[in-house]
Amino acid sequence: MKSYRKELWLNLPARRGFVNLTPQVEECLQESGIRQGMILVNAMHITASVFINDDEAGLHHDYETWLEGLAPHEPLDRYHHNRTGEDNADAHLKRQVMGREVVVAVTDGKLDFGPWEQIFYGEFDGRRRKRVLVKILGE
Amino acid sequence: MKSYRKELWLNLPARRGFVNLTPQVEECLQESGIRQGMILVNAMHITASVFINDDEAGLHHDYETWLEGLAPHEPLDRYHHNRTGEDNADAHLKRQVMGREVVVAVTDGKLDFGPWEQIFYGEFDGRRRKRVLVKILGE
Amino acid sequence: MKSYRKELWLNLPARRGFVNLTPQVEECLQESGIRQGMILVNAMHITASVFINDDEAGLHHDYETWLEGLAPHEPLDRYHHNRTGEDNADAHLKRQVMGREVVVAVTDGKLDFGPWEQIFYGEFDGRRRKRVLVKILGE
Repeated sequence: MKSYRKELWLNLPARRGFVNLTPQVEECLQESGIRQGMILVNAMHITASVFINDDEAGLHHDYETWLEGLAPHEPLDRYHHNRTGEDNADAHLKRQVMGREVVVAVTDGKLDFGPWEQIFYGEFDGRRRKRVLVKILGE
Repeated sequence: MKSYRKELWLNLPARRGFVNLTPQVEECLQESGIRQGMILVNAMHITASVFINDDEAGLHHDYETWLEGLAPHEPLDRYHHNRTGEDNADAHLKRQVMGREVVVAVTDGKLDFGPWEQIFYGEFDGRRRKRVLVKILGE
Repeated sequence: MKSYRKELWLNLPARRGFVNLTPQVEECLQESGIRQGMILVNAMHITASVFINDDEAGLHHDYETWLEGLAPHEPLDRYHHNRTGEDNADAHLKRQVMGREVVVAVTDGKLDFGPWEQIFYGEFDGRRRKRVLVKILGE
């Protein structure tokens, strides 16, 4: 059994945004030399998500609007968590809808994906350096 | 380490619906000969889900109604994604609530499940052939 | 390849609540002797969740309020599932938002976590004994 680990660093200029991580994850897979296995990609922060969906700007706009409707950022005092001095309670909620992690099959040295699958980082409390973990197991 | 891979094909007659995949996943596990490990079952399409819940028709009706409330199909122009000519933006949102994938423990050659766990395919943009990936790792 | 399996039992006194499982999962990992791998932690019941987020009481209050808004417990007859004699349809919905499982990387014998990640059990239909499965694969 082989294992591989890498941290990807991100620093989004706005509070919220989406970044396509697929090329970086593919590089990790190539570096690992693993041909059959599973790859875990997870946010290491609890106000961010890793998820798989479409690389289409309109859809990302829809996610932004939809999540803001489900868990509005304001008024800040709507959330008990913000009494700690934070202003990111909504980010902890949005992250639950979009998920923390994805597990992707590795087959013949490739991400075993359907036609439109792409791995995204979803930031809900940005403007600071944050990390994504890539861990690969297999042989 | 052994690995196993299979695609399950589905073609639901309606836009939305749920299909119990558990018997087919159990067949895959038997075919694989793997006794200890993990099994990944994921939608290969970004407008469908794989999730674990109850095989009860009333609950599936509730999921349908609830998801339609959270992310309505219409009006279509509510979503920027539909400006691309698609009409399935809501399906991309519903899929995030229900999830892309499940990872299930394999113990003594069986799906290591609690009493009511069943694996479902959730279709949110059907009436065409779509795939689910089953990948098993272990020994 | 080594594998490890353990069931954690819980019995929450209220219908809903959150329990930090991290110390118990760390004990499992130590017991397993696995240094590199992946760990799966999942609810074995379909009205409960395992998720990763912050160990902060205000946030847990916010989750409770937010989930009750997204999928209210009452009126019971709002849900077809409750016609079976159950009163827990809302719990099946809440569990989908919070998720069934987490997969965590194991690196150098430790949970490979960011600064604030903690593993939680989320109960949505408590007052009875329920189980969480810990499965570890690696070497």
